[in-house]
Order: sequence, then structure tokens, then C-alpha cells
Amino acid sequence: MTHTVTVSFVSAEGGKPRRARVPHGATVLQAALDAGVEIAATCGRRGRCRSCRVKAISGTIAPPAVQDSVQLGHEAVHERFRLACQMPAIADCTIMPAPPAGEAGHQILAGAAGVDVASLKLDSGIEKRALRATVPQDEHNQSSDLEEVLRGLPRGTDRTVSVDVLRQLPKALRAEGGLLTATTFLGRVIHLEAGDTADHAYGMAFDVGTTSVVGALMDLRTGETLASVSAVNAQAVFGGDLMSRIAYAQFNDAKLQTLRGRILNQLNEFIEKSCSDAGVSAEHIYKIVVVGNTCMHHICLGIDTSYVGLAPYAPAVRYAIVVPAGDLPLKRAPNAQVCFLPIVAGFVGADTIAGVIATRIYESEGIRLLIDIGTNGEVVMGSRDKLLACSAPAGPTFEGGQVKHGMRGAAGAIERVTIGDDVACQVIGDAPAVGICGSGLIDAAAQMLEVGILEDNGRLRRNGLEQLPERIRRRFVTDGDGRAFALVAAADSGKNEDIVLTQNDIRQLQLAKAAIYGGVMMLQKIMDVPDARIEEVLLSGGFGNYVNIDSAIRIRLLPKLPRERITYVGNAALLGAQLALLSETERRRAEDIVRRIEHVSLATRVEFQDIFVDACNLAAPAR
Amino acid sequence: MTHTVTVSFVSAEGGKPRRARVPHGATVLQAALDAGVEIAATCGRRGRCRSCRVKAISGTIAPPAVQDSVQLGHEAVHERFRLACQMPAIADCTIMPAPPAGEAGHQILAGAAGVDVASLKLDSGIEKRALRATVPQDEHNQSSDLEEVLRGLPRGTDRTVSVDVLRQLPKALRAEGGLLTATTFLGRVIHLEAGDTADHAYGMAFDVGTTSVVGALMDLRTGETLASVSAVNAQAVFGGDLMSRIAYAQFNDAKLQTLRGRILNQLNEFIEKSCSDAGVSAEHIYKIVVVGNTCMHHICLGIDTSYVGLAPYAPAVRYAIVVPAGDLPLKRAPNAQVCFLPIVAGFVGADTIAGVIATRIYESEGIRLLIDIGTNGEVVMGSRDKLLACSAPAGPTFEGGQVKHGMRGAAGAIERVTIGDDVACQVIGDAPAVGICGSGLIDAAAQMLEVGILEDNGRLRRNGLEQLPERIRRRFVTDGDGRAFALVAAADSGKNEDIVLTQNDIRQLQLAKAAIYGGVMMLQKIMDVPDARIEEVLLSGGFGNYVNIDSAIRIRLLPKLPRERITYVGNAALLGAQLALLSETERRRAEDIVRRIEHVSLATRVEFQDIFVDACNLAAPAR
Repeated sequence: MTHTVTVSFVSAEGGKPRRARVPHGATVLQAALDAGVEIAATCGRRGRCRSCRVKAISGTIAPPAVQDSVQLGHEAVHERFRLACQMPAIADCTIMPAPPAGEAGHQILAGAAGVDVASLKLDSGIEKRALRATVPQDEHNQSSDLEEVLRGLPRGTDRTVSVDVLRQLPKALRAEGGLLTATTFLGRVIHLEAGDTADHAYGMAFDVGTTSVVGALMDLRTGETLASVSAVNAQAVFGGDLMSRIAYAQFNDAKLQTLRGRILNQLNEFIEKSCSDAGVSAEHIYKIVVVGNTCMHHICLGIDTSYVGLAPYAPAVRYAIVVPAGDLPLKRAPNAQVCFLPIVAGFVGADTIAGVIATRIYESEGIRLLIDIGTNGEVVMGSRDKLLACSAPAGPTFEGGQVKHGMRGAAGAIERVTIGDDVACQVIGDAPAVGICGSGLIDAAAQMLEVGILEDNGRLRRNGLEQLPERIRRRFVTDGDGRAFALVAAADSGKNEDIVLTQNDIRQLQLAKAAIYGGVMMLQKIMDVPDARIEEVLLSGGFGNYVNIDSAIRIRLLPKLPRERITYVGNAALLGAQLALLSETERRRAEDIVRRIEHVSLATRVEFQDIFVDACNLAAPAR
Repeated sequence: MTHTVTVSFVSAEGGKPRRARVPHGATVLQAALDAGVEIAATCGRRGRCRSCRVKAISGTIAPPAVQDSVQLGHEAVHERFRLACQMPAIADCTIMPAPPAGEAGHQILAGAAGVDVASLKLDSGIEKRALRATVPQDEHNQSSDLEEVLRGLPRGTDRTVSVDVLRQLPKALRAEGGLLTATTFLGRVIHLEAGDTADHAYGMAFDVGTTSVVGALMDLRTGETLASVSAVNAQAVFGGDLMSRIAYAQFNDAKLQTLRGRILNQLNEFIEKSCSDAGVSAEHIYKIVVVGNTCMHHICLGIDTSYVGLAPYAPAVRYAIVVPAGDLPLKRAPNAQVCFLPIVAGFVGADTIAGVIATRIYESEGIRLLIDIGTNGEVVMGSRDKLLACSAPAGPTFEGGQVKHGMRGAAGAIERVTIGDDVACQVIGDAPAVGICGSGLIDAAAQMLEVGILEDNGRLRRNGLEQLPERIRRRFVTDGDGRAFALVAAADSGKNEDIVLTQNDIRQLQLAKAAIYGGVMMLQKIMDVPDARIEEVLLSGGFGNYVNIDSAIRIRLLPKLPRERITYVGNAALLGAQLALLSETERRRAEDIVRRIEHVSLATRVEFQDIFVDACNLAAPAR
């Protein structure tokens, strides 16, 4: 995209706004320079200080970078504070430069609320120390290489080391005459090498989703994200959704190993690619945090997933796990300790916990709702007092599955629909429409409901069609799949046929959205929380980025809240993994949260049947 | 050998001895039956009780079996107490049946000394427990397979388990409806399997020597040795002695990996063979104890041995090490934890520590001396107050190396020599002599010294030959290697040439024995211990079994002590490994001993030069 956006700067002291027009994606800091607004950038635009702190007053802004969370804390980020140097301008917006917070410590003042909250401490657990050890010279001296190295490390350093470290010892000690660098994780030596490499300590955070896999290479010493990489999960050839992946490998160890090999291979490639992009050595990756749903977690570890796919969907293990990379194996990062965040239940996995960490709803005073809309979505609701979680399996509909002309959000997909006198479709890539993606489907349904093409119960209107505009009326068609509504006529499509929504497509959408909204309603019921008491809805996951929130509210995919109380928080699972990577405090917090969070199994709740039926409706029943 | 031996039984109450003639190797218990002497065998001849306890009053007896040590304790074994059911009759001997000690506990009364000593506790650290765990059935219940299993184990069981155990979980829990067996090592789960297999817990002890490798499969629950296996170290093709092994792999990782592969392969074969012999599953081997010199220790672990071969011969690590079998890897015993005993110095390794454990000189009131005569021998001297150790590298002479007609103790080797009016040689296998082995060499030198063929300084006599018997005189020959003494004439040999000892052969013998005796003298000097204060000399290692002790004293390979104060203790290194296998108390003791023992580096002691020169003499210089 090469279009431009306008960034307006206002001052807390009032006065005329200053404006700059910058290319889409340029940083707000650049826009400030262009507009002649002075914003300090003490760290050289690296996201390592808070001097360029700004607050977005209006307009759509990008999800926070991890540096925003690291430097400003989550509460401030929720209040739309950002680092100008890290913030891309993605739409017209109004920005207020904020007085920089004190540089000392990590305490920040969280915007309007005025609450002091602790921000992230960089305590990854990884310590690198260059030291000059004595190379044994004296036969009288009863010593060993390891003892000489330990002498240079803090008292209390664990003297038991892995075989791998023992194998590194003789060379590391002697190659540079005793100058070597020891890396410890939580007080245990995990790597030794000759010379002083103490400046190089990296880590990777992975979110292994059923559909896509995302990784971020980070500098453990500064918190900087050095490279990011993402791709479709390489297991996708064995089934698009979780259950087909489980079915593929069920009671078949060879197939489980195939799935495991695929994903480990992919993670290895990600490590290689991001290290190459950032120009760092993968030997200096010492910590890896992996989050993912229970199935992906088990597959990465090589644990049979057969029972995760059968009621009661029990995981083999829920505790946090730390394994040396060599035990998975992740051969590209041979010196890393791989940390898997803990799990709540078979369908509420480590990715959900990571999302809770990232959004900090565990410390929220009011009730917040975290919704990951996806094939295997999850809903978490609560506050610092109580947290509930349930799985909300929407199925593949939002990814275009089980929809006649459904497709992913790629070129040719209808992504926005407006219906007035006629239907107007916005298509990805300015191409002729060949299908409709999840966000288009939601938009279409909302608009069709609005103008009366759909009834509240999801039926395509049969009666009173004559009340609809002529051009709309003509779009009711009947094809081999029964009644349908044509969004794009054959003549205008890229497929030489009408792009339609069938009655069945609408039913699929209703089932998918009811899975999510039914979960929300169920948690609301258990906690006795009416909509009005929900302070904020946090949408996470890839799909949340594209969905038209007004449309989602219109069709009751999301609860009916004022628009400003619904926030898209980006890939919260990855963000949580990044936080756990940079901070052992956060990683330990995950274990506390797993103990606190209560899993609600929807399928076994008698009352859920009625709730689900209700949630299928596109409009709330009259009370 | 099919000859017979006579076992005489005497009673503490006096009376006429009873005798039985039994095949060599028959048990003393069998001999007692044959002789009509009643000895109870409560446990059915399995070495699991003390009812058949006897004391050897006179005659040569075999080294103790591990059951002797387990049941009777080391002190009693030193006092020549044995279990009749485990004791092979290997020579004519006189045996006194002893009153059985109380069966309760492991306290025993140690023979004449009347001292109560604690005997071995069976505390291998391995615990197997069959339990009925709940297979998760209830979706409401937030649980996991691991949590259900841990619920059936003692509080305090470590909840962090290896990836391997996680992989065993789902099947182990469900294959028999929740009935499973969990194995812990020191409170951490190391193996899970379906069903009740709690009766099967085995371990292996390995002594990995430069020349030979010995293994014993043991039942961890009873202390029984179920199978034994030994062979020449499979690395031998890359050099017979330690230094040539080190030189082969020096600064060459591929060659180090070759050596490592050879020995691990051999250990895997040993595991397979002994499990097959004993009819047990290698999956049920949970603990393996490995002892060996520092070089073998490092090679097994894949640690570069380059620096172990260069002054100051520093090991990479001296601490005790525990690694999962998969990390070495020892694939045949996938569920085992492999324990390497600790090391004192580059040439005083875990095998020496095992010998100290086995002989318990660390708790001796008087000064004892433990000598491992071998290519890389070691000497340990001390008592409960102080322990000194040095390496005593005799070189290959005792194995026939660097000796003109030298050979190992195989068929055709002269093993005993008697010289009176003429020379009489005893040859292994009743074959014509083709060479001379180490024990024959020592015997020959002692006899040649006795009758005046050799001078005290090791020179073949030149003057006064006419005083020697005619047949002896004729044996002085001169060949391409200078003067020599023919032990076997060409006509009687299997080689069509004289089997001789050259002047150089004698010099090599002097250097070899001086390495050991010089070490002994050095430790005596440091501790200020004259011969008279040495209560006992304990000979260990394969060679010690064959050496004629009188001859060894005669040529000053051993200090001049009354014959009964010199005891052959068998393969003390393996015995120590077996004790550490059966008892964590003993394994921990090894670490205490390493901290207490003082390493004496002979090469860097100025005074050692004079001592070595003195030690080269075959007779003590006149004072």
C-alpha cells in the first residue's frame, strides 16, 4: 500500500493542531518531525526508552509493539499510549505528545486512571558473564575445568551441568587462554564458549497455532524485537483444523511423529531465517518460549494427542515445562532452553494463558473479556477477583470453510459489504470477486439483517420482498443449493457465476458465531455479569484484526457494547510469549494464572443448550 | 579346568575335620553337603541371607562375590568370612562354619575383631510403585494425566519430569485402566508403564578399563548379581594403552566420536547380553553406575580427552555426574539414569574411588594400601584419618609389552617359573611355551634373583657364573639383543627358538615395578609410614589375581610384609560400582571421599627422582 495518511498533533496546552501527511506505515515520530513537532528520541528510535511517549486521541492505530508494553506497561497501552518511534501511522489520527515519564525504574503512571502499575522487568532468567578462568597449570592443584569456571560465577551457581556443557568445557576454557563466557538460566550453566560474547543473548517467542505459526526473535538484554517471521502451519496438509489433525495421528505414533517433524522443522527454519535477517548467531539463542493450543503443545513435545481429541479432552500435562532444545529436538538453537507455558484444559491451552498475560485481565479491577475468534477460539472473562475460561470452537466458517463461496482473506475475497439501494462489495486486491472471506461474511450478514434481507432468526426473507429496493430484490436467486442472495452478479465476478450467500451459508455463520457468543453468554451467566458491567472486550488473534466490529455486534458475535469499549489487541498469544521470554516474572505468573483460572466445560452444562440456541439468533429476542 | 580340590571343615568346638573332594569351582556349600557337614541355606542358595556364613581358616579362596559384601559387610569379608552358597572352592582350603548372624537389619558382628559395623543398606534410590490412578473422565475436573499419576505417589515427588516420561503418560495411564507402575529415582519420576511391574527393578554396574570392560546386571531389590559379562575394550584396535588412545583422538573430534561410539556400542551389547542371560527386560534397568579411569570416563561422556593427556592432565569435570541414558546415548537401557562416580585427578579416576569404596580403607583404623597393578595403576594409602592417592603408570610390561617374548596371559604363556638346579616353567594351557606373561616375568625375575642369576641392581650376572649349576650356566646366551637368559630352549618351545629374558626385558620390568613401588614409597614417605605400620596391602585389578605375591615381594614390586597381610580383593572397581549401584549411601560416599583424598603428583615431586631410582632396585640397598 502506497497511499498516505494524515497525522495531526495536538498539545495538552491547546493551540492549533499541526499536521503532516506521511506514507502509510511511516512512524508517528517521522510524522512529528515533518510537522515540526518536537519529540525527543533519546534511545535513537530503538524503542528502548520512553522519551517519545505519545497518546492517540482519535483515529485507528496499530496494535502495540512489544516495546510499547515493555516501556509503557500494559495499562498505558490500553489507554492508547505508544512510543512514537515504534508506532506506524496506518490511518488518519490525532496524536498528543505526552510528557516523558521518569527514566528510572519501570514504574509508569497509567494515563487518566492515575494508577501506579508495575511495568515489565527485563528478567529473562538468562545471564551471560564473561570471565577469566584459570586454565589448570599445576599438577598439585586438584581441580578440573568445570571447577575453574564455576569459580568465576556467583556463589550458588548450580554445579550440575548437562553433558552438552561438559563437552564444551575443555575448548571453551583454553581457546582464548581462559577468557570465556558462561551463560546461565536460573542459576544453572547452560552454555560455555571461548571469548567475550556477553553482549549477545537472544531468545525466540513462538505462537504455534493450528492455522499459522508466528515467531519473534528478541534481544534478551534490551527487549528489542529483532526479527519476525510467520507462515501457515506446515502441518496444514494433514488437515486444516485441530480435530482433523488429531484424527490423522490418533493411535498412530508414526503419524504423530510426522506432525511433530513438520512443526519442529518449521520452527528450526524460523530460527534460521530470523537469525539470518537480524544478523545474529542462533548459537546465542538461550531461551525459547512456545505457546499454542493443547494439541500443538503436545505435538511439539511428541506427546500422543489421541486423548486430547476424546472426551474429556484431558491433556497429558498442564504444568509449565522447560526442556533443553536438544530434547525436542530444535537443532538450530542448540543452546536454548525451551519453555512451554502451562495449560488450563484440552481446549484452553498455553496460547490462552499467554493472552491473559499479555492483556493483564488478571489484574483488572472491572470485568474484562478476552475473545480469540478462530477455528478453535477461546473466551476468558473476569478480573483480578476471578477468571473463567471456555473454549469456543467456531469451526472453519470464519476462514471460509463450509461456505459455498467461502475463501480465506486473499486477493479476490469480498472483505467488506455495504447494502443500501444496492450491494457494494470491497474486494481484497482490487480484483474481481471470486469468493467471500470471514470478515466479508460477517459484514454481509450484518448489512442483510439491517436492510431486512435476513430475518432475526437467520432466514432469508420470503415475505414482503416487494418492500425491498428493486436491485436488492433481483438478487434473491435459487440455485442447486436452494435459496440464496447474490452479492456479486456473474458478469462482475471473477468466476463467471454469481457469488452468493446461501441459506446454508447463513446457518453456518450462525453456528460459528453462536459458539463464540454462546461462550460469552455462558460465562456472563455464571458470573452474573450483564453487558453493562463488561468494561472492555479485547479481541485477539489474526481474525480479530479484520472483522468489522460494528457488524460483529450487529449479528451478535460480540456483546452489544459501545464501540470504544471493544479493542483489538493483536496477537495476544505471541505478545504473552514475548513477555514470558523477556521476563521470568511473567513466565511464573502464567503458572499462578493457571491455578486461578476456572475452566467451564460448555458441552457438559445443561443450560448451555438453551444459551446456544439463543446465541444462534442474529438479533436479541424481544424480552 | 576339571581338576578337584579338597575342602576340609573344622568346628569351633574342636573335633576331627571332615573332608570332601569336589570339582574345582563347586560351592563350599556343596562340599559341606558332600562332607556331611550341616550348613543351613535359608534363602535357597541365592546369597540373600546369612545362614550359610563360613570363615576360611586356611587356603586360597576366591575374591568375594558382591553378595558377600552385601550380606556380611566389608570388614567380615576382609576377615575371610564368606557365604558358603556363593563361594567357589578354587584350591584346597579349610573352612569353619560360623554361627549365623541375626537376620534382622544389616548389622553384623565382624569376626574376631568383635566390632559392630554397618553393612550395606539396599537404598539404590530407585523406587517402583504400582498404583491405580484415575483416568480423567470428567470434563469439569481440571486435571491432566500427570496430575492423576502424581496423586498416587508420595508427597514431595518432583512434578517436573522429562519429555520421555511425558511421552509415556497417556498410554501408561490408559492401557490397563489406570493400573500403572511409576519408577522414581531420588524422588523424581523417570519411567511410567501400564500394569504392575513393581517386582522388576534392575541396574548395571560397569567398570570400563583401558584394557577390559566388565559389567554386572543386578537386581536392585535383592542385591543379587543376575549376570556378568566382560570383554576386551572395543577401543583396543586404536591403541593398547591409555596414552595411545588419547593420542589417537587428540584434537580430532571425529576420532573421539569413533572411540565413544565403540565403547557405548559395547556397553549396549553388554546390557543386551546380560538381560538376555538373566531373562529380564532392559526396559526395567533404571540405574547404571559407570566407573573407569578419567580418560574412559570422558570418552563415554563424549568429552575431549586432549588435555587429559597433557600436563597437568586436568579433567574437564571431577564431580559425580548423573545423565539420562538417552543423553549418552545408551539406547539399550532407555529408562536408566547413568551415574558416573567422581574423579580425583587426570590419572586417578572414578575406578580408584570405586576401589576405595569397595575396600573401605576410608574407615580403616590402621594404615591400608590399595594397589591396582596395571598399565595405568594407582596407589591409595591411608586410613580413616587421611587418604593419599597417586597414579602408578607401570606401562604395558605386565601385559607383555616391550618385552622380547612378552605376551598376555593366554595359552602358551609362561606363568610360573621355579629355578633350582634347572629352570621349570609352568605354561598356560599345558602347551609348549611361546612367550612369557606378566606373572611369569615377575616369577622369573624373583627366582633369578634368588639363585643369583640377577644382581640386586637388575644386571644379568657376569662374574662367578661358575658358582651356578651347570644347567643354569648353559642358559646364559647372547643374541641380537645382547645378553639374555633362556627360560625355555628352542627344542622345547613352541616357536623353534629360545624363549629368553633379555637384559632389556629386565630393565623394562624394573621400570614398571618401580612405577608402582616408587608410588608406594612416596606415599609412605609423605605419611611417614614404615612398612611395619602398613596393616594390609589390598591388591585389585585383573593382574593382581595372577601375580605370585611372594615373587612380587621378592623383586620389590610390593612392600616386604608378612604374606598374610597381603590380600587380593578382586575387581575392586567393579565391586565399588556395584555397591554404588545398590546404595545411594555408597554413591554419595564417593563424593565425600573425593573431597577428602589428597592427590600426590609424583612427576612434580623433586624427591620422587631418588625414590624412583631406589625403587628400580630388585633388592633393598644395604642401610
